[in-house]
Amino acid sequence: MAPRNVINASVSPKGSLETLSQREVQQLSAAGSGSTYTLFRQCALAILNTGAHVDNAKTILDAYQDFEVRIHQQDRGVRLELLNAPADAFVDGEMIASTREMLFSALRDIVYTESELHSQRIDLSDSQGITDYVFHLLRNARTLRAGLEPKMVVCWGGHSINSDEYKYTKKVGHELGLRKLDICTGCGPGVMKGPMKGATIAHAKQRMSGGRYLGLTEPGIIAAEAPNPIVNELVILPDIEKRLEAFVRVGHGIIIFPGGAGTAEEFLYLLGILMHPDNQGLPFPVILTGPKSAEAYLQQLDHFVVATLGEAAREHYQIIIDNPADVAREMTESLKKVKSFRRERNDAFHFNWLLKIEESFQRPFDPTHANMANLELRRALPPHQLAANLRRAFSGIVAGNVKDKGIRLIEEHGPYQIRGDAAVMEPLDKLLQAFVEQHRMKLPGGAAYVPCYRVVT
Amino acid sequence: MAPRNVINASVSPKGSLETLSQREVQQLSAAGSGSTYTLFRQCALAILNTGAHVDNAKTILDAYQDFEVRIHQQDRGVRLELLNAPADAFVDGEMIASTREMLFSALRDIVYTESELHSQRIDLSDSQGITDYVFHLLRNARTLRAGLEPKMVVCWGGHSINSDEYKYTKKVGHELGLRKLDICTGCGPGVMKGPMKGATIAHAKQRMSGGRYLGLTEPGIIAAEAPNPIVNELVILPDIEKRLEAFVRVGHGIIIFPGGAGTAEEFLYLLGILMHPDNQGLPFPVILTGPKSAEAYLQQLDHFVVATLGEAAREHYQIIIDNPADVAREMTESLKKVKSFRRERNDAFHFNWLLKIEESFQRPFDPTHANMANLELRRALPPHQLAANLRRAFSGIVAGNVKDKGIRLIEEHGPYQIRGDAAVMEPLDKLLQAFVEQHRMKLPGGAAYVPCYRVVT
Amino acid sequence: MAPRNVINASVSPKGSLETLSQREVQQLSAAGSGSTYTLFRQCALAILNTGAHVDNAKTILDAYQDFEVRIHQQDRGVRLELLNAPADAFVDGEMIASTREMLFSALRDIVYTESELHSQRIDLSDSQGITDYVFHLLRNARTLRAGLEPKMVVCWGGHSINSDEYKYTKKVGHELGLRKLDICTGCGPGVMKGPMKGATIAHAKQRMSGGRYLGLTEPGIIAAEAPNPIVNELVILPDIEKRLEAFVRVGHGIIIFPGGAGTAEEFLYLLGILMHPDNQGLPFPVILTGPKSAEAYLQQLDHFVVATLGEAAREHYQIIIDNPADVAREMTESLKKVKSFRRERNDAFHFNWLLKIEESFQRPFDPTHANMANLELRRALPPHQLAANLRRAFSGIVAGNVKDKGIRLIEEHGPYQIRGDAAVMEPLDKLLQAFVEQHRMKLPGGAAYVPCYRVVT
Amino acid sequence: MAPRNVINASVSPKGSLETLSQREVQQLSAAGSGSTYTLFRQCALAILNTGAHVDNAKTILDAYQDFEVRIHQQDRGVRLELLNAPADAFVDGEMIASTREMLFSALRDIVYTESELHSQRIDLSDSQGITDYVFHLLRNARTLRAGLEPKMVVCWGGHSINSDEYKYTKKVGHELGLRKLDICTGCGPGVMKGPMKGATIAHAKQRMSGGRYLGLTEPGIIAAEAPNPIVNELVILPDIEKRLEAFVRVGHGIIIFPGGAGTAEEFLYLLGILMHPDNQGLPFPVILTGPKSAEAYLQQLDHFVVATLGEAAREHYQIIIDNPADVAREMTESLKKVKSFRRERNDAFHFNWLLKIEESFQRPFDPTHANMANLELRRALPPHQLAANLRRAFSGIVAGNVKDKGIRLIEEHGPYQIRGDAAVMEPLDKLLQAFVEQHRMKLPGGAAYVPCYRVVT
Repeated sequence: MAPRNVINASVSPKGSLETLSQREVQQLSAAGSGSTYTLFRQCALAILNTGAHVDNAKTILDAYQDFEVRIHQQDRGVRLELLNAPADAFVDGEMIASTREMLFSALRDIVYTESELHSQRIDLSDSQGITDYVFHLLRNARTLRAGLEPKMVVCWGGHSINSDEYKYTKKVGHELGLRKLDICTGCGPGVMKGPMKGATIAHAKQRMSGGRYLGLTEPGIIAAEAPNPIVNELVILPDIEKRLEAFVRVGHGIIIFPGGAGTAEEFLYLLGILMHPDNQGLPFPVILTGPKSAEAYLQQLDHFVVATLGEAAREHYQIIIDNPADVAREMTESLKKVKSFRRERNDAFHFNWLLKIEESFQRPFDPTHANMANLELRRALPPHQLAANLRRAFSGIVAGNVKDKGIRLIEEHGPYQIRGDAAVMEPLDKLLQAFVEQHRMKLPGGAAYVPCYRVVT
Repeated sequence: MAPRNVINASVSPKGSLETLSQREVQQLSAAGSGSTYTLFRQCALAILNTGAHVDNAKTILDAYQDFEVRIHQQDRGVRLELLNAPADAFVDGEMIASTREMLFSALRDIVYTESELHSQRIDLSDSQGITDYVFHLLRNARTLRAGLEPKMVVCWGGHSINSDEYKYTKKVGHELGLRKLDICTGCGPGVMKGPMKGATIAHAKQRMSGGRYLGLTEPGIIAAEAPNPIVNELVILPDIEKRLEAFVRVGHGIIIFPGGAGTAEEFLYLLGILMHPDNQGLPFPVILTGPKSAEAYLQQLDHFVVATLGEAAREHYQIIIDNPADVAREMTESLKKVKSFRRERNDAFHFNWLLKIEESFQRPFDPTHANMANLELRRALPPHQLAANLRRAFSGIVAGNVKDKGIRLIEEHGPYQIRGDAAVMEPLDKLLQAFVEQHRMKLPGGAAYVPCYRVVT
Repeated sequence: MAPRNVINASVSPKGSLETLSQREVQQLSAAGSGSTYTLFRQCALAILNTGAHVDNAKTILDAYQDFEVRIHQQDRGVRLELLNAPADAFVDGEMIASTREMLFSALRDIVYTESELHSQRIDLSDSQGITDYVFHLLRNARTLRAGLEPKMVVCWGGHSINSDEYKYTKKVGHELGLRKLDICTGCGPGVMKGPMKGATIAHAKQRMSGGRYLGLTEPGIIAAEAPNPIVNELVILPDIEKRLEAFVRVGHGIIIFPGGAGTAEEFLYLLGILMHPDNQGLPFPVILTGPKSAEAYLQQLDHFVVATLGEAAREHYQIIIDNPADVAREMTESLKKVKSFRRERNDAFHFNWLLKIEESFQRPFDPTHANMANLELRRALPPHQLAANLRRAFSGIVAGNVKDKGIRLIEEHGPYQIRGDAAVMEPLDKLLQAFVEQHRMKLPGGAAYVPCYRVVT
Repeated sequence: MAPRNVINASVSPKGSLETLSQREVQQLSAAGSGSTYTLFRQCALAILNTGAHVDNAKTILDAYQDFEVRIHQQDRGVRLELLNAPADAFVDGEMIASTREMLFSALRDIVYTESELHSQRIDLSDSQGITDYVFHLLRNARTLRAGLEPKMVVCWGGHSINSDEYKYTKKVGHELGLRKLDICTGCGPGVMKGPMKGATIAHAKQRMSGGRYLGLTEPGIIAAEAPNPIVNELVILPDIEKRLEAFVRVGHGIIIFPGGAGTAEEFLYLLGILMHPDNQGLPFPVILTGPKSAEAYLQQLDHFVVATLGEAAREHYQIIIDNPADVAREMTESLKKVKSFRRERNDAFHFNWLLKIEESFQRPFDPTHANMANLELRRALPPHQLAANLRRAFSGIVAGNVKDKGIRLIEEHGPYQIRGDAAVMEPLDKLLQAFVEQHRMKLPGGAAYVPCYRVVT
């Protein structure tokens, strides 16, 4: 590791809306004992690392072991004192405004999450309670704005894509921005940054001053996918499932760009929800798109979906190759349907209450070898259930590839056994192999990929 | 009662920041059963009655028994449907913007209060917990703004004062506004309106667009003292004690205009806090002022304070007669001290954490005959305790004069017996008689005043 | 004269949009020689005198003979240095923002007027050229805003009216403001202030931040009728006729409150234009209104108009007694017609190009004895010509009453002889006598009024 | 030429501040006769061609010969009707906001220029008059804003540079933007666009909403270098010399990126001014910069300057290779000196009055063969005069390369003869050859470059 550039700085809350009670400051300051401080320190470090090109959380955390953040109450609000902070977040010693804002957003969300955990207001044991919780957290973050038209477009896809694909995401963002649409992503680099950058330029051309670049993240991923500085609204959800729910409740349409197993997981999560019988007739635009060079990838994904979930799945998305303007035009047209549907049903523009999300989608899947082996992957299942189980399979593969706990499990017990009908297993195997060939599987250290799973028919 | 002018209307949340969860909408809509709906309906009625000159809560509530408010979730947020609403809140069928804003503020505060009651986050059983609660409610109402200078001036005094005194409050407000200070009052008519009106004109002259006119009220008083429409931030605290605490935590200085027993109660509340040994050295500007015609009143109040709490009490306030510019200049100067004190101690500008408020001031006093008779009113007590007890005495008198429960107690058991040293009792008796003579005692029905108390030495 | 309170101050252009070239600064600074400096000094003095209650230009100018204003170019724009300036325009040594703004508005308009005089761009010798000039001056003052709806209501009437009438103008302004209309007046006290004050409060209630309070004045009147500080757009037209033209070109409707001979002159100017055959069918709402106490006055005016100009004149105005809400409602309704008319004819909302103003209305009338004696006041004239001549008669009376030159002429040659048909002369005589009886004739020194005219039939 | 995509559209003045008088509309509409319409049509076409990659004015004008623009007065201001307009300026049939704004800016400037020509206010025959004219035109365009700090950085360089150099200009713009500096360019593609794009992203990161991207152009160049759509203030100066003067009067510092003969001309114009004895001590930061690959180019330029104007010229600029952050830091530091200098001398921040520009720099140079042959290019001349003459030489070469008139002259009379000392001629010859080798000379049709000049020693 190269010598780090660090800086000590005191950050005033200029422009931030956040205020804390004395008790909240104390809780956050209890550096030794509890999890609140640790959590905030970790998020703060990720945010300060914004410009960096490292996507390995551990590397970042290790590099700045002596980083400290202290929280002080003071006259104009809360002041943060940073010790040994990454110097990249500063310009000539002054913190970049977007970074400062995000630090205070992290503070706000972590304080809120902590506070709610000690409250009994929210019942996290049932589906409605979880949805309520997501609502309250987003409301507290001022993300839910009454009165705005449906125009929040979620962009999903890989955080490390090639230059051709990255440029394409910028162009799509530019076309969306010219049509005055807002962008929501997972707030890291790659697909999470390109559309925001394109939209920023387009919004400037359209003289739109209130363009929204909403980043939704969670503490487990923020270090690996540091928020890009275009993000002007950052929300830290407590875990992956709540983050996914936030995406589909605040987003009015979704564009899926090329990515890896994670992107496949997200796509299946979405199909699992949209194919649920309760959601029939509910308009939710989904567009898969990429440059000419990504056509094979997108078609393979499409074939896999049809082969496993059936032709009916195709009703829920469309594929557009190499045509940013068409993507944006299609999205704009589809959003009109979303708008009239919500108006008719008296559903809020700012939160998709009518979307049914089964509790099974809201609860985390623990990818043990037993859980993976027991996944029912049969063609005869109702498609939305098969989609749910396939999502879990991909979720396990992501964990086995890159997550601490997953990697250790694989080392101990060998690859996961994934069983099922040949009609499901064969397409799955092909898709996964294609990912490997296209270098879309995360390869720690850059070595040749050794699969963490074995497909058993 | 004259024939009422009523109107049915549907109020969109245009410009309001408030959004509600489905559960919150359901809670509020449960018209039959619970207290939440009743509470909101009552506050809504008071707000709609904004222009009216009736200060009798019962009269208003009786006049609009068929008033209903229904809450609907819809595309752009929450919509309110009003049935048989007072027509005065509308101009050519359209609701005045400030009234609409206040309706949604009431919604916000009542939802928050309800929600917190069912949470166990806040411990209302100890002093720190109560202060935290006040903080959270004000923060949720976006009243606590990090980054603003100390410039919120609280104006206390009677809601029904004579025309000469009313004009004087406008002039003082004008001078405060010319110096770019903000105004906080109890948000009704009289002293609660005059300074805001004067400041609005002065802020316009100073081309200040963000002038704040903060009204703090509580459900028990809002019907009698309907928020005046200049108020551009309305907060409904759950009870009188939390409202009083909110005044002294968000206000940076206090101006006391002429009023009745209620104003005396507030003044003694304030002195009881400022004379507490823990608050020694803490700057908190208090100015008593009025037009020439109110000089006798103010001097009598001053004499009473000195006679009972001693000369030391005078350190905590100054009296300025008939000089609005001087009042504003003095306040401006004193606020500089508040600012430097908070800066030195790292206390927030937006919330006076350092002010010690004893739990006895935070808990309601129940004015039974026994409690009134047992009040210790001895000159030998530490002044801040005597002030606390005198405040309770005035609080009881206010209740015996005008509050339902108090009036019934007096009818049943005769006047309260207030006992104590002659050194305390004599000045008290004089002050009360003066209030009667100056028509500052509320006289229901306008009959000759029959005292609800007997001073016993 | 009481000892004056004066102050020396340096005024930075904070918030002002004005910049000057070096040449312009030099022109203005040439204190000794030219008229530009003298003109600006006089306007500046009037503006600084804003709060004062003296309406005699001479008194003010005499009181501050040693007042000086120096203009400096500096880093952030133009800085004004004031010597021996009236202290009332300052709060604790700092100039009130509205006063500062108006000083720079005066600078802007005087520089523009000077510059145009030396240019030959504008041909002031024909009617179209004069209208163009008024347009350019208003555009340069940023008064003409493309995109705004027709909502600028001109309020005419006396600058020194009684308290009952003044309160009434505030109420009308309040009702206009509640309907989000803007106010334009001659920018002094009395009727020129009341409606603006009422509208300011109403705009605050409606949460309107961009309310316009437009004051149109000219150098000859500004000293006597100092701009009230609510005015947030001040334009100084070069003379009375251009000021009158500006009123009817930028105003979308006109309300006439009680006043004296000057108000009668304005009313006849307006009728003379509206009764011109070319303006037939052009909607231009005119409402005469006042409190109950002013009913007789308004009826007399009405009778005079009908008696001289005929019943047809009544088509152009309506009278509403003691009903501010009705006045505002009628105006709102009528403005809709103005809007649809201009839309159909492609006329600008911000400038009434279609209104025909004959050159005779654009040129000043010089009230010599000969000119007064030669006025044709015959019932047989086309009404718009008779109106024009009656306006000249009133103009002469105003001059003979209060203007330097007029007073001297009367002293020398005795009262004006006004000749005409009995059918015109009798109503005129009655109206003038009523003005005298109601103390609406300006009485210098307060002495009994000696008429400066003699009506000869 | 490919089939053109054209569109007919009606453009409302939404958001534009511009209003026109009837006379101005008539002038502009006189399509047949005069130059005003022709001029506006040509600028409008260039602006609508914004996205295009053609830099040949003639090609564009030819491609849209049937393009028409009609100007109508209407209710909300001026409406433009476009016939056969390039479709690229529209998104789904709606004009991009920045393009709309620029159309109305062009209208404003052309109307102003026309109007002034017919006025006699401005004396264009002397140096001060020309400067005054530039000031008035910029003021009318609202470009001169009192109260802003010195932070307008002019970026000069080629409009068709390679991808490496273009990316570098974006990075420099990004670093300037992070330091909250504004950008001014000639408003076309290449160096004129890159810095604005980088700054837009950086301003978004710094949450700056008022970033300025000022484009200065003139009718002769606008068609070849169509304004890029990031430009949010467009000013059309009447000719090249006034445009150059505008650059150095409103810019607080200048960055020179790689370019061709035109860039060399600009650099010499600047040195000629800065080396004038009257400008000694006047701080004016100039930085030459480029990526590593442009180092040789920059050094050659530097050597040429030293060889011809002497070592003293180097005091007026510095060279920074491949370090965008350093460029921005140096500029920021230097601007502090500009600020304190202007403050001390009471010069305006918004217009550099103190900069001496000799009349010879303000007057156009006509590149006839005689004028070129007579240029005095002797080392013994005072450097600022030699710089002025070298600028003329480059100006002639640019004309001979690409301008209609110049090309015809060369065809007729053969190459220009440029004479002078060997000490001047040899470096000049080398520099020009290097430009040819580096393909920085404009080659119409892409043929091998045949020089339009002959250097004669």
